[in-house]
Amino acid sequence: MLEFFTNPMSRGQIVRWMLEEVGAPYEERIIQYGPEMKGPEYTAINPMGKVPAIRHDGKVVTEVAAICAYLADAFPEKGLGPTPEDRHDYYRWMFFAAGPVEQAVSMNSAGIVPTEEQSRSFGFGSYDKVVDVLETLLSDRDYVCGARFSAADVYLGSQIVWGLQFETLPKRDAFAAYAGRLTGRDPFRKAKARDMALIAEMEAAKAQ
Amino acid sequence: MLEFFTNPMSRGQIVRWMLEEVGAPYEERIIQYGPEMKGPEYTAINPMGKVPAIRHDGKVVTEVAAICAYLADAFPEKGLGPTPEDRHDYYRWMFFAAGPVEQAVSMNSAGIVPTEEQSRSFGFGSYDKVVDVLETLLSDRDYVCGARFSAADVYLGSQIVWGLQFETLPKRDAFAAYAGRLTGRDPFRKAKARDMALIAEMEAAKAQ
Repeated sequence: MLEFFTNPMSRGQIVRWMLEEVGAPYEERIIQYGPEMKGPEYTAINPMGKVPAIRHDGKVVTEVAAICAYLADAFPEKGLGPTPEDRHDYYRWMFFAAGPVEQAVSMNSAGIVPTEEQSRSFGFGSYDKVVDVLETLLSDRDYVCGARFSAADVYLGSQIVWGLQFETLPKRDAFAAYAGRLTGRDPFRKAKARDMALIAEMEAAKAQ
Repeated sequence: MLEFFTNPMSRGQIVRWMLEEVGAPYEERIIQYGPEMKGPEYTAINPMGKVPAIRHDGKVVTEVAAICAYLADAFPEKGLGPTPEDRHDYYRWMFFAAGPVEQAVSMNSAGIVPTEEQSRSFGFGSYDKVVDVLETLLSDRDYVCGARFSAADVYLGSQIVWGLQFETLPKRDAFAAYAGRLTGRDPFRKAKARDMALIAEMEAAKAQ
């Protein structure tokens, strides 16, 4: 039993893509922003009052990267988790995406530029450095783990795809090529279509 | 062959603790802040120009949380990695620590308080919320995965131990009790003693 708590206008889109890569049937629970997401029923699942979350055989996982890593391990037959040969890259770039990339991009988007003194508190160094390191990484390989697509691509890749779409990342050839490899995948398209349909439904309901 | 690139005055202390939990012999490479850490030799290992990093049989891992997760998997006989029963908690709180906790604490330490508008860019919500969620977590269990100590405690636990020491986290009973369980461990003490000795050596050299 796999439940997926999400809102189509959230990073739940990343988890839906991962669920489609895994291919296991799941039950969708749409949580509305506002009172429902911050209310007692949902905060019993995620005390942060955020979507997405999953519940699998009664076990709750929150945090997008954690859900990707969890699903990769829980469905090993899909070959989306780390292997002894590439787990160094898998973990390295998964946590690089969850820490420095997330932090650098969100601070940059919020228009916060730390002073020299403040930047010592931050592990990411600077937005430009993070972008350059990502570009170098994606210039010499097709996927995070080399030739093999993995859960690390769902998570890091989503940051690239959304970063280009919302212009929170600069246009770089390596980013565009990588995004192209990812968005051409059937599970990506299937997940995207479902979220777009849900958004259209919500807009139509609002317009009435 | 396991190499450990660190500086005793860095989050390398967390990795040294993890290395002591694993118990595998390693070669220590002290990297000085400034030109050495930003220079071509070390940035070939970590292009971010940051310590710590490890190289294991030629494979490089950076990012503290990634190194903990990698070592847990690379030395499975130590039982520090996720199990099918507790991997939901293992990944959930490992990534919660790497993302929301890291971001909330470092922004709070830098004295940056996001506006309501800006805070939408941030996945962590607010510093107070992150602290409360951590407190609730650690109030009902001894370790991240329940009764079992794991690599997730090395990483999340270090944030609690250092947070109390440097007062970047508020004093809460659940934090103090958890920190006490961790700092009493032999591998923690052994790692700490080595870094303290290195710091003393560096201070003595500077004083000459």
